[in-house]
Amino acid sequence: MGKLREPLSEAEGLNCALPVALEAMGERWSFMILRAAFNGVHHFEEFQQVLGIARNILSNRLARLVEHGVLERQVMVCDRRKAHYALTEKGMDLLPAMIALRQWGEKWGDGVPSTPVLVDIHDEQPIRPLTLQAHDGRALAYQELCWKHRAELQPLGSARPLVIAAE
Amino acid sequence: MGKLREPLSEAEGLNCALPVALEAMGERWSFMILRAAFNGVHHFEEFQQVLGIARNILSNRLARLVEHGVLERQVMVCDRRKAHYALTEKGMDLLPAMIALRQWGEKWGDGVPSTPVLVDIHDEQPIRPLTLQAHDGRALAYQELCWKHRAELQPLGSARPLVIAAE
Repeated sequence: MGKLREPLSEAEGLNCALPVALEAMGERWSFMILRAAFNGVHHFEEFQQVLGIARNILSNRLARLVEHGVLERQVMVCDRRKAHYALTEKGMDLLPAMIALRQWGEKWGDGVPSTPVLVDIHDEQPIRPLTLQAHDGRALAYQELCWKHRAELQPLGSARPLVIAAE
Repeated sequence: MGKLREPLSEAEGLNCALPVALEAMGERWSFMILRAAFNGVHHFEEFQQVLGIARNILSNRLARLVEHGVLERQVMVCDRRKAHYALTEKGMDLLPAMIALRQWGEKWGDGVPSTPVLVDIHDEQPIRPLTLQAHDGRALAYQELCWKHRAELQPLGSARPLVIAAE
């Protein structure tokens, strides 16, 4: 990946958004709740039932996901004791990360093909594995990536190609 | 996403590979170590230095990542007290998930554009945001996905298109 690195320590990485993402999704129960939300679960009782999670933990994690702006809590008009939890736009945007993790697990798991599979609603074909792509859609391998300071980015067409150094 | 759901509880989800992926990458320090590995860090002392992590935690997490087959530990020929940690193919395959999380954090973080940015080594242009794509490369939104039992998948061209139900 070349010699430039991203800031790696927590202190340096204050403007790196990764730890934020990890806090929202990395904790096991938060992740299970998010996954259920993507599967159309909206109510406390239903989360509790499908996940088999203790009520106090569920309550705590839902509150944190709402606080992070990943879920939105609305009191239901028909029954004010019940709340409806829905993914926000910010929450929906976690889908690529979630699917990438799922696909990794499928590829490197116990070898049993998982079911059900995620398909395109239009032609019922499984979705593609998520891959890294260049601006024009070319697939990129790890070895074809490097870091560049934002201030040094050049408009397309004006940058000189780099020679890939042998390591 | 339609009425079919993936198995959501831990007990049901035994053949779902997601929790495995989360265990390998979801824990904060494991994640920071992996990120450093993707940035070319290979040695215990260097991990310790760039991450500012306690030695016992570092030692424990490195061992777990090796156990998961994500990192490979090799004793160095030149100095048998030193070990070299390298990403395995399985570890490299976590890159899309890591980048997807990073891009989410960048989009929804504190609004300060992060630097450095990840570019294609050939033309030094930033990589594309990771998106969900159909088998033919069309971008797919959350609303265009549904679950299907593996046994019910049809060869391309023979499936009847679904009507997207209004919610």
